[in-house]
Amino acid sequence: MPTILFAAKSERWDTYEAPLRTALSEVGLAHATLTTEAAPDTVDYIVYAPTSGLTDFTPYTRLKAVLNLWAGVEDVVGNPTLTVPLARMVDAGLTEGMVEWVTGHVLRHHLGMDRHIHGQDGIWRAGSAPPLARDRTVAMLGLGELGSACARMLAQLNFRTLGWSRSPKEIAGIETHHGADGLDTVLRQAEIVTLLLPDTPATENTLDARRLALMPEGAVILNPGRGPLIDDDALLAALDNGHIGHATLDTFRTEPLPPDHPYWAHPRVTVTPHIASETRAASASRAIAENIRRGEAGEPFLHLVDRDRGY
Amino acid sequence: MPTILFAAKSERWDTYEAPLRTALSEVGLAHATLTTEAAPDTVDYIVYAPTSGLTDFTPYTRLKAVLNLWAGVEDVVGNPTLTVPLARMVDAGLTEGMVEWVTGHVLRHHLGMDRHIHGQDGIWRAGSAPPLARDRTVAMLGLGELGSACARMLAQLNFRTLGWSRSPKEIAGIETHHGADGLDTVLRQAEIVTLLLPDTPATENTLDARRLALMPEGAVILNPGRGPLIDDDALLAALDNGHIGHATLDTFRTEPLPPDHPYWAHPRVTVTPHIASETRAASASRAIAENIRRGEAGEPFLHLVDRDRGY
Repeated sequence: MPTILFAAKSERWDTYEAPLRTALSEVGLAHATLTTEAAPDTVDYIVYAPTSGLTDFTPYTRLKAVLNLWAGVEDVVGNPTLTVPLARMVDAGLTEGMVEWVTGHVLRHHLGMDRHIHGQDGIWRAGSAPPLARDRTVAMLGLGELGSACARMLAQLNFRTLGWSRSPKEIAGIETHHGADGLDTVLRQAEIVTLLLPDTPATENTLDARRLALMPEGAVILNPGRGPLIDDDALLAALDNGHIGHATLDTFRTEPLPPDHPYWAHPRVTVTPHIASETRAASASRAIAENIRRGEAGEPFLHLVDRDRGY
Repeated sequence: MPTILFAAKSERWDTYEAPLRTALSEVGLAHATLTTEAAPDTVDYIVYAPTSGLTDFTPYTRLKAVLNLWAGVEDVVGNPTLTVPLARMVDAGLTEGMVEWVTGHVLRHHLGMDRHIHGQDGIWRAGSAPPLARDRTVAMLGLGELGSACARMLAQLNFRTLGWSRSPKEIAGIETHHGADGLDTVLRQAEIVTLLLPDTPATENTLDARRLALMPEGAVILNPGRGPLIDDDALLAALDNGHIGHATLDTFRTEPLPPDHPYWAHPRVTVTPHIASETRAASASRAIAENIRRGEAGEPFLHLVDRDRGY
């Protein structure tokens, strides 16, 4: 029976211990050793959060795989001491939560809800119905697990949905583009753009001053992805001059976002505290247990990270 | 070729004349007479808005059908001088717009968006992710064209979706109930309830004090249907004592909602000015032209109102 080291902060252990034991039982690994402390040379699998402090994998001589607790792997993928397979978290609950957050905020901006939420002033402003979704172009940057699930839901709501990814991808009902030229093509049309790209050196400042200027006047940006995808100074300038109509941001270069950051006070910005989606312990534990079962059975791991691409 | 009287306010004529002529051409009725004034005994069809002032249909001796410009027929269905078939508007654009408004506001309340839209105070409130939609029970009262389309979209977003209608109805993916007992069963579970019932004597005050009290603590009400479906005093009392968490209301007994109405100032109410869905001239004109084509061809009319049920 394998030894599984849970390497994350202690509050995570409180959340995960019971659902992980349940999930291990369900895949026939009830007798696996699940622990927060083990001699490195006895460990077969590490359930890993980068905030655990564990950065040197060298002593883990019999390690078979590292199973990341989250979807983002930017803090571990470049670690040179990590030489075994690395799997990202692909959690059905995480995808569902993200679809709900993205669909909700796209509809919020599409419908112009804030005007009503803020404007309960007794003035009946008739004739202010928004265009139909079919007459609204929205875009998803990033077509991985999360991005493609969100794009499909937006297309089901009749939005004219464009998708962009680094390499070509086809999704039914979505007009997909790729590469640098494709990104410009998408941004020129996107009235509401959502960022769900991985955080890699290649994606840093995907939305910079030049690309923000391509977007239609009054366009809206949603960033539930990763903070570094946006050049913050360029975005603030585009919000100040009104070229970008609103930004709803859930991820930041520094989290928690410092209280004096200009995003908090900007009238065209909504900050949400990295809640667009959270991994849910029950479904995440099932995903981890399934990968350990596969490792023990000699089957290929699911959701492996491509170390060269960085995601 | 038939004579078609357009009986609605003059601004409607400005909006509808061109799309109606186009739609009539498309169904082979380019030579029909479309007019805002005609001797009553020459009129074959009336395209009708109750605000037109036309209430006596007696002089229209050769009338074949009245084609309502809107979905709601409460202002004409009881007219004793109307003895020919009455068709309601079923407009694809109207349904789509309603699905967008309902889905958007359900997600707004599900995600607790208002807290973030109002609360840009520099305080990072982590750990505040909402439950997944699959763990949230929502309900649709009314399963006609609009209600069933909205319920289906909510089910696609994984909400546990309950539906209620007066008589039994089955919709895939929706747990449906009917009758008086069924309504109580649905309300006891509904964390977010949407009203899309017709306005009839039987549906007046569907949400009264007794039924509001059945709903879970903090439940949210959306009314894009018709104002009289809610007992306003009972709702205000339930909002005051916090039993109902929020009401987002788009329709009212008196419209425009008077500026001194307590709904405007209530912190738990969002008023929207009857914009949840508007009939779109292009698609509505196609629906009207198709019914006239059917009348001329001796085929059954679409979307006929049951005069006894009142909808």
